[in-house]
Amino acid sequence: MANQLYQNYTGTLQKIADIKYAAAVLQWDQETYLPPNGAALRGQQIATLTEFAHQQFTTPQLGQLLAQLQQEKLTPTELANVKLTQYDYTKNQKLPAAFVRQTSEAINAAYHAWVLARKQNNYSIFETPLAKIITLKQQEADLLGYQHHPYNALLNDYDPGQTVANLDAVFNNLIPQLQTLIQKISAAPQVNNSFLQQHYPKAQQWQFGIDVLTQMGYNFAAGRQDISEHPFTINFNSQDVRITTRIDEQDFANMLWSCIHEGGHALYEQGLPNQMYGLPLGEYASLSIHESQSRLWENNLGRSLPFWQYWYPKLQAIFVTQLQQVSLQQFYNGINQVTPSLIRTEADELTYHLHVYIRYLLEKDLITGTLTAKDIPTAWAELYKKYLGVTPHNHAQGCLQDVHWSHGSLGYFATYSIGSLYAAQLFTSLNNNGISTQIQQGNYTQILNWLRNNIHQYGRQFTGQQLCTTATGQALNSQFFIQYATQKYSSIYGIAL
Amino acid sequence: MANQLYQNYTGTLQKIADIKYAAAVLQWDQETYLPPNGAALRGQQIATLTEFAHQQFTTPQLGQLLAQLQQEKLTPTELANVKLTQYDYTKNQKLPAAFVRQTSEAINAAYHAWVLARKQNNYSIFETPLAKIITLKQQEADLLGYQHHPYNALLNDYDPGQTVANLDAVFNNLIPQLQTLIQKISAAPQVNNSFLQQHYPKAQQWQFGIDVLTQMGYNFAAGRQDISEHPFTINFNSQDVRITTRIDEQDFANMLWSCIHEGGHALYEQGLPNQMYGLPLGEYASLSIHESQSRLWENNLGRSLPFWQYWYPKLQAIFVTQLQQVSLQQFYNGINQVTPSLIRTEADELTYHLHVYIRYLLEKDLITGTLTAKDIPTAWAELYKKYLGVTPHNHAQGCLQDVHWSHGSLGYFATYSIGSLYAAQLFTSLNNNGISTQIQQGNYTQILNWLRNNIHQYGRQFTGQQLCTTATGQALNSQFFIQYATQKYSSIYGIAL
Repeated sequence: MANQLYQNYTGTLQKIADIKYAAAVLQWDQETYLPPNGAALRGQQIATLTEFAHQQFTTPQLGQLLAQLQQEKLTPTELANVKLTQYDYTKNQKLPAAFVRQTSEAINAAYHAWVLARKQNNYSIFETPLAKIITLKQQEADLLGYQHHPYNALLNDYDPGQTVANLDAVFNNLIPQLQTLIQKISAAPQVNNSFLQQHYPKAQQWQFGIDVLTQMGYNFAAGRQDISEHPFTINFNSQDVRITTRIDEQDFANMLWSCIHEGGHALYEQGLPNQMYGLPLGEYASLSIHESQSRLWENNLGRSLPFWQYWYPKLQAIFVTQLQQVSLQQFYNGINQVTPSLIRTEADELTYHLHVYIRYLLEKDLITGTLTAKDIPTAWAELYKKYLGVTPHNHAQGCLQDVHWSHGSLGYFATYSIGSLYAAQLFTSLNNNGISTQIQQGNYTQILNWLRNNIHQYGRQFTGQQLCTTATGQALNSQFFIQYATQKYSSIYGIAL
Repeated sequence: MANQLYQNYTGTLQKIADIKYAAAVLQWDQETYLPPNGAALRGQQIATLTEFAHQQFTTPQLGQLLAQLQQEKLTPTELANVKLTQYDYTKNQKLPAAFVRQTSEAINAAYHAWVLARKQNNYSIFETPLAKIITLKQQEADLLGYQHHPYNALLNDYDPGQTVANLDAVFNNLIPQLQTLIQKISAAPQVNNSFLQQHYPKAQQWQFGIDVLTQMGYNFAAGRQDISEHPFTINFNSQDVRITTRIDEQDFANMLWSCIHEGGHALYEQGLPNQMYGLPLGEYASLSIHESQSRLWENNLGRSLPFWQYWYPKLQAIFVTQLQQVSLQQFYNGINQVTPSLIRTEADELTYHLHVYIRYLLEKDLITGTLTAKDIPTAWAELYKKYLGVTPHNHAQGCLQDVHWSHGSLGYFATYSIGSLYAAQLFTSLNNNGISTQIQQGNYTQILNWLRNNIHQYGRQFTGQQLCTTATGQALNSQFFIQYATQKYSSIYGIAL
């Protein structure tokens, strides 16, 4: 009986997954190969699938099935799946199908407006679609319910259990220490990274990215890389996990670390248990944990000296004229240059958190209504002036740089900082003497295995906090990041930090 | 009231279209960019969408809505849509959802088996999945019901109203006349086409194809071309109509005419009224009419002397060493060489019908059970020996050459011949003195407009037979093809036919 009920449950959830992942394929297509005129109806097609999936997930039958299952004798794994589905079910029931469809359509309109507004440097094209998204997100917070702050309802979507109170505490500890570090660095003799801004032909950059991804362990039989406006990772099951990148021929820094970053996300998805397709234990734990995987590969590994001890000779052999005069140490220092700048995705590891913090401050105020879509460009400029000392010259360098709001992803940005903090803590745990030598040899097998064993295999079985505690022996502690940063940058800048 | 009901109707049908076209996007992705390991779950994802679309199209609510609508005062256009949907609804209700899902899954398994069997030249890999398809198709014929012959039920899927009796009559007239023509040609001095089998680099072939498609009027803002195992056209609405091709660097004949052929299909889909998205009047009339469009462009235009008077100098400029010794007349004669051969898609315009006729004979017997999947290789060889005098050396050149059976498309092949016959008749009607000069100038505007006005704009409003009669002044008459062929080949082979 339990067995039959559990099969009904998995059958139902896997069909819902089929629809959700079909919508994801349409999304992937939209951002890679969709011909321009195809966009008009694509939004509607995705909205219909999203609505269908939502309908299937909110039927009374599923509610009854879940209730029945919790009366049955289930294995611990089965029970874990059922309880997480019950959590999702309860939450989803709070959102009416029409609201979900309206949101999906608003997101589609906002995404296309964002692309156009960015292209034409005209914020007003995006303002109304964004205002619509914000209104819907405020409604969503009300529908979902929250304690203390409406933004908590949205944060919880990306990082279960995350709160404004907790993030305020984390940022209040992190930001002042970072500001001090950044001030000391800016007073020191600067490192040169002008060698990055030369002509690096597209085809060679692409191939180098593919080589790095391959060596990281990204399985191209279970994924592929394509070009898109904004790099992303998307999965249709753990055996079809795709990434995208963009290439700037005049800036080597634009592609490679983004490529490693998405590769880190993709390794997580490829490492999720495929037999749990459509079930909670086949899904990632939280976006903060997801980001810890991408950041660990991008920064703790991909911007480390041992990593480049292996790769730099290969890179020099490909880009001979561009790099023959640049030593490994100069390259390493250059790629780790700390400079307050305008673009989040191109920011160094330290100022990156300031970019995130600015978005966090803005989103909190957008959700409470203290700030409106109209105010964004001015507020953006003020906060960038205050925290980074820079002013955008156009909206693509300013408030139109991120795709997230056009995707309706308010509450998402904080996971980037939390992810980096997790990454530093995880990397400290797995970083023993042998690891450094392996990295110098381009061998990441032990690292990937450690992540597979400590993070990937569990899916959503544990929360981010639980995974962190099990893997590292303690809860999230931002001092691991501060220690990592202090050690790294005191060496690069030759100063006591 | 009528207005509100009609809006419910269009809303329902457009959501069903969203799901069906989403399945089509997954299909397109599967045959172009899907990483190998992604195939395992893709079949299930497509099956779920197909089942959902079918469920939505067979609800009692839709049945009631259609019944109500037919009591209301509707415009002629509205009534035409509703009546065609009623026809589809009645037909679909005959197929249980589980049967539709089973068929979709069997097709997926058969497709992958076909790819593998073809690659390994091992028919036995495909035999069992094909037997399953045949059984399901026999069941489908029984479920749908038929008069006189079970194959009629399947023919009707692709060409409404088509029957074994009618096709027997057409082929009984056509095949003997063709055999006589082919015999006379084979007794005449042969034309040389060896210049086609040289090295034609991929990139230049691809670009030439793109140039021809562009000049045909194929709108790349509403479509794109990619590479796949088997060329096909697929649409997600009339503003997103995609085609695929394959390129053989050692055989120029492999890509270009297939490219023009798919372009002809795509022009039809791009010409369907986009405001009728999801409704019958936004769909093609029949696959025979669809094929008439591709064949008209591929053969009546793309293998004509005026067409190459424009394109050949350009082709010679691209492939200088390959073609500098080949005159326009030699080229024209060569690309129209008539030779009994093994591969349908590479066959000339005359022997092509024999390839189709063989499949027609086989399918009729498979559906009645006179023949089984196991018998195919032997029966195939016997019929090819009898009608074309050739014997396949491997299955890829034989019974595994077509994707159709693996797609569950039994009853489809006859539309290729009927389409060619329509094409000849349509082309005779639009072919006045001015047209030839325009074709010599690479100007196809008048041709495309004529097809848009006489065929494309009507969607499914009229049957194939009705469109043919309206456009040409008479019902389908295979003598137009015989006349066209006699004239063309007597000139090429310099003989009286």
